[in-house]
Amino acid sequence: MVKPRKAAGGEVRSVPEPTPGDNEVLVRVLASSICGTDVHIWEWNAWAQQRVQRVPMVFGHELSGEVVRVGRSVRSLEVGDHVSAETHIVDGTCYQCRTGKMHICENVQVLGVDRDGVFAEYAVLPEINAWKNAPDLDPAIASVQEPLGNAVHALLPEDNVEDVAGKRVLVTGCGPIGLLAVAAAKTLGAQTVVATELNPLRARLAREMGADLVLDPTQEGAATVTKIREATDGHGADVVLEMSGHPASLSLAFDALTPGGRVSLLGLFDRPATLDIDGALVFKAARVHGIFGRRMFETWFQVKGLLATQGFREKVLKIITHRVPIPELARAMELIESKQAAKVSLEAKW
Amino acid sequence: MVKPRKAAGGEVRSVPEPTPGDNEVLVRVLASSICGTDVHIWEWNAWAQQRVQRVPMVFGHELSGEVVRVGRSVRSLEVGDHVSAETHIVDGTCYQCRTGKMHICENVQVLGVDRDGVFAEYAVLPEINAWKNAPDLDPAIASVQEPLGNAVHALLPEDNVEDVAGKRVLVTGCGPIGLLAVAAAKTLGAQTVVATELNPLRARLAREMGADLVLDPTQEGAATVTKIREATDGHGADVVLEMSGHPASLSLAFDALTPGGRVSLLGLFDRPATLDIDGALVFKAARVHGIFGRRMFETWFQVKGLLATQGFREKVLKIITHRVPIPELARAMELIESKQAAKVSLEAKW
Amino acid sequence: MVKPRKAAGGEVRSVPEPTPGDNEVLVRVLASSICGTDVHIWEWNAWAQQRVQRVPMVFGHELSGEVVRVGRSVRSLEVGDHVSAETHIVDGTCYQCRTGKMHICENVQVLGVDRDGVFAEYAVLPEINAWKNAPDLDPAIASVQEPLGNAVHALLPEDNVEDVAGKRVLVTGCGPIGLLAVAAAKTLGAQTVVATELNPLRARLAREMGADLVLDPTQEGAATVTKIREATDGHGADVVLEMSGHPASLSLAFDALTPGGRVSLLGLFDRPATLDIDGALVFKAARVHGIFGRRMFETWFQVKGLLATQGFREKVLKIITHRVPIPELARAMELIESKQAAKVSLEAKW
Amino acid sequence: MVKPRKAAGGEVRSVPEPTPGDNEVLVRVLASSICGTDVHIWEWNAWAQQRVQRVPMVFGHELSGEVVRVGRSVRSLEVGDHVSAETHIVDGTCYQCRTGKMHICENVQVLGVDRDGVFAEYAVLPEINAWKNAPDLDPAIASVQEPLGNAVHALLPEDNVEDVAGKRVLVTGCGPIGLLAVAAAKTLGAQTVVATELNPLRARLAREMGADLVLDPTQEGAATVTKIREATDGHGADVVLEMSGHPASLSLAFDALTPGGRVSLLGLFDRPATLDIDGALVFKAARVHGIFGRRMFETWFQVKGLLATQGFREKVLKIITHRVPIPELARAMELIESKQAAKVSLEAKW
Repeated sequence: MVKPRKAAGGEVRSVPEPTPGDNEVLVRVLASSICGTDVHIWEWNAWAQQRVQRVPMVFGHELSGEVVRVGRSVRSLEVGDHVSAETHIVDGTCYQCRTGKMHICENVQVLGVDRDGVFAEYAVLPEINAWKNAPDLDPAIASVQEPLGNAVHALLPEDNVEDVAGKRVLVTGCGPIGLLAVAAAKTLGAQTVVATELNPLRARLAREMGADLVLDPTQEGAATVTKIREATDGHGADVVLEMSGHPASLSLAFDALTPGGRVSLLGLFDRPATLDIDGALVFKAARVHGIFGRRMFETWFQVKGLLATQGFREKVLKIITHRVPIPELARAMELIESKQAAKVSLEAKW
Repeated sequence: MVKPRKAAGGEVRSVPEPTPGDNEVLVRVLASSICGTDVHIWEWNAWAQQRVQRVPMVFGHELSGEVVRVGRSVRSLEVGDHVSAETHIVDGTCYQCRTGKMHICENVQVLGVDRDGVFAEYAVLPEINAWKNAPDLDPAIASVQEPLGNAVHALLPEDNVEDVAGKRVLVTGCGPIGLLAVAAAKTLGAQTVVATELNPLRARLAREMGADLVLDPTQEGAATVTKIREATDGHGADVVLEMSGHPASLSLAFDALTPGGRVSLLGLFDRPATLDIDGALVFKAARVHGIFGRRMFETWFQVKGLLATQGFREKVLKIITHRVPIPELARAMELIESKQAAKVSLEAKW
Repeated sequence: MVKPRKAAGGEVRSVPEPTPGDNEVLVRVLASSICGTDVHIWEWNAWAQQRVQRVPMVFGHELSGEVVRVGRSVRSLEVGDHVSAETHIVDGTCYQCRTGKMHICENVQVLGVDRDGVFAEYAVLPEINAWKNAPDLDPAIASVQEPLGNAVHALLPEDNVEDVAGKRVLVTGCGPIGLLAVAAAKTLGAQTVVATELNPLRARLAREMGADLVLDPTQEGAATVTKIREATDGHGADVVLEMSGHPASLSLAFDALTPGGRVSLLGLFDRPATLDIDGALVFKAARVHGIFGRRMFETWFQVKGLLATQGFREKVLKIITHRVPIPELARAMELIESKQAAKVSLEAKW
Repeated sequence: MVKPRKAAGGEVRSVPEPTPGDNEVLVRVLASSICGTDVHIWEWNAWAQQRVQRVPMVFGHELSGEVVRVGRSVRSLEVGDHVSAETHIVDGTCYQCRTGKMHICENVQVLGVDRDGVFAEYAVLPEINAWKNAPDLDPAIASVQEPLGNAVHALLPEDNVEDVAGKRVLVTGCGPIGLLAVAAAKTLGAQTVVATELNPLRARLAREMGADLVLDPTQEGAATVTKIREATDGHGADVVLEMSGHPASLSLAFDALTPGGRVSLLGLFDRPATLDIDGALVFKAARVHGIFGRRMFETWFQVKGLLATQGFREKVLKIITHRVPIPELARAMELIESKQAAKVSLEAKW
């Protein structure tokens, strides 16, 4: 699926089969899935116009696939292995890469944004970016490990310093990553998970993911904070995951936080936001983590562990509300834009 | 239940109802339970002879009770509250207490060892040592929160720096604390839990707690490590909890550990043990945590969270294999010494 | 020195010698010093009007003193000990106190704000709040350990998780706490310390504290970030301490931060501030710590260690630009308000 | 300098100039230095016989050099850059490498042990193993950054979780790494550093590195612990670095440790050691870190920061007691074996 020119949409087009370099593998795509980034590129919105330089280009970056060829320096993979992709292709030598922060490499290249992606029959991945999957993992689930990684990284942001065992967690915004975060928080031993969401479909899914309470702040108004506080033993939330990018949620995140608690910010706000630094941060001794990507590859191992936990795969399947053959990408985009879908899986039926 | 003199056994005896000080509460005991320490005191073994100075003394320290009187400075509790006891009575001003390590206070006094304990109708607790329980918590479960805290502290030893999300965990030795650790590890998101245990009753309970694999090293011999490695993706265990105090388990703990993994040592060995420091620790970059008590009170909050998690209370109930009226303590001790019981709960039926 | 009524100023007045309770000590004041809070109370500004309920009241909270009487339950102190005060008087039983966060106790009382303070001949302190000093420590230095603790807590905010060894540090705003932070960062092994400050006196002191570069952003304009980046190996600062409360410094803090770096916010902004959450926090994977008080008492031990380090006491003495007898408090306030002074020490000459 | 055959000694021999691969650089050696590993290989002791498979081989791994050629995929280095070597050549894809623990890569290759090393005119390094030095850094200092990294890694073992700010540190054994650890501990803000050492030359150097107290346990006997306790405010050491590999030091390490303190084990014991696990570890809630190599490359950045700190380079120069032209390696080895030298630098004078 190629973005042929700097304009909305995309088209199916025959492209040459890519050739892996010495440190790369060639992968046959078994399934892929749609991320918000892909929607931006499809719509060719302001962000995409500013960010995407290279057209025509194959876009898409969430996938599961089977290795069909390996470069001559590749040691850890062989033909037949099932893999997914870590989208961030890093230089390995910058300050961030050399200090355990590859996910914010100074010279990062993003699959399907800076180079050809995965909405295709075949894709090329550097060896290190190819994550080996359990052979019995459903390709549709394998493909959504990246957003699941975002969710887990927001929960456990920093060298695992911040666990959620027995904690009270608030998730503001239940898009696919928010929903995965609710599920992950419960599986990792959170005592209580409260979620906020306006969309009824997503609110229902949040409950199915295990949320103890789901609130619609547009309905609840000022009672939102009160109800969160009641649901969290009167203390407020120990951990807040802001996943909506909505200014009202930003305030709510800090209002609902217990003193000394922490907030992970993953949602994008698009414009500067206003915050009462004194009350929200200083007097409350709050801690804030900006969340970008997921740790390479600590988070992937945590995701692997989660997917081996009883009942977790079933939850992920519920979040994949639709499966669409990849040539019908336009229809899939429509399902997302109209908020009829949570996560859409793309079938490799050309 | 009083230890009347420096000799084996104990007796039921009428004692004056204790009076709480300004910072203390008087508690009516609803249930108590038997810890290994109580067995030592009952048997009056070498450890007890050296450690216990004060007789006659009421012993026992695991309890749940109802507050019936509060000292005049007490602010956080009132008559009718249900509480359990943190056994370590600390000075609050030593180096350890002032740096987040109350549980290893230099001047600690232990309930039922250094002062009157809880195998009685009434007990006195300092306000800070009285942990408020959810009103709907079964007193038998509430009473075993201390060993549960030991298990959780071994899993999450240090300011929560070391989580178990998605990790592979090995528990060597499935006494009551080992069993609770298996259950807690699974509930906190461990990918795989392997346990070792010789006793068939305990091995069965370990499986019921959720262990993915339970091995008897006396049967398996050298295959024990191989089987642990196979069950942990070939890497070995990320986290080992040594809860047996057996020298062979100490070696196994490090042999089965993945490089860079960590070992929590809770079991007591009674005599010096021999260890290949180079291979076990240095070349493996292993980390070791000595585990004593549980964090005051971070661990208690984690325990509270666990007990609010679906299905966890049921697991604890399975570990309480026997309930015995407290005047029949001799019979309860016999059940433990003969390894017919895992955890024995004492009913407040005088 | 009493705040006699709800209005600006204060007066010397004879008050009864206070009596220590069971868990308290009576201290003869050897020296005290002026904190920004005291200036607010003196000026009776909006914050003071809203916060201070109790008049007449002795104000002031930074002191060094000698214990002259101890309550009957006091164990860790005796008459003749030299002590300073931790200002936060905590309940010891709330959620925060029970989880290593006493400094943000839900029911905190502040010395010299909620109860009688230390601008007096005698003061009463709870045992746990009386910090024992080395006998040879200059009382003027001993008295400024609280703001020094603020500085150190901003540098090492969270269970020591975040050290500064070999790091590049930016301090925005060189009031007394900022100056102490510069000195502490250098002593704790920071590679480079850059400071920003407009006031020439304070800028000079920042250099004397060891700052490698001091910039005046009103002079440098957009070059400020460039120069910080050049001074930090092109990466930007690993650690930023925002100590000015100025909106322009807030933006600078994040602009000058290396991806994955951290910001401690200690300065108060008085009104909501606007921040580009996406660029400043999310894409940069920044971490933020709100800094309030100092850890009880981990930070105090770190301060003790610093004060035992060669050359550090001399630096603190340079920050104490003026020593004024306490009855001349009005003059001392004037020195601070006109920015002629950095830190003002008050001599116990009545 | 080639190890020509499986026997003691080595010889200068003409070898072909090596060719860098795509991801490698060719380096002209400016200085090198002798590590204990090189002594083992020179002596061809039991360890070397078992570990070194490849002869003839150039040995040696500590160096500083100038890049004279770069492979075609190299991006972060250019001809003329001054570099030192991280000796551990890792696969980048194993479990350890993918989780921030490259220094214990499962498939590590060691320079000068598994492949040609640096006691030569030219050496080849993978790009990621070539650490770029400040151009003004003395090559003799640049060459000892690896053992300096060992020392710093022992001080700050784990994601910087464990700092030394204001702490009391004990270093048992003052070989070159122990001496560097003493210097680093003081520069990173330790309050007190106590060292043990038998050799008078090294004991003197330990004092010059800043040790507050240096003890000879063979002279002091049982008073050793008492004196350490007195020098550490009666608490014992917060941090112990065991760098001698001597069984008596292992006991001392734990005896002198404050409850809740931590021990880094770097010295090798060659045979199993006996330890009172209960008293040393469990009751003391001690934490132990096995130290192998240094973090790649967090520790290198810390080392860089240290070397930029005033006065630190001068201390390193004092530890380099001898400079010997590399063809006179036999004489250099003799200086080390007879304990006349601390660190020996090798001059590139062929």
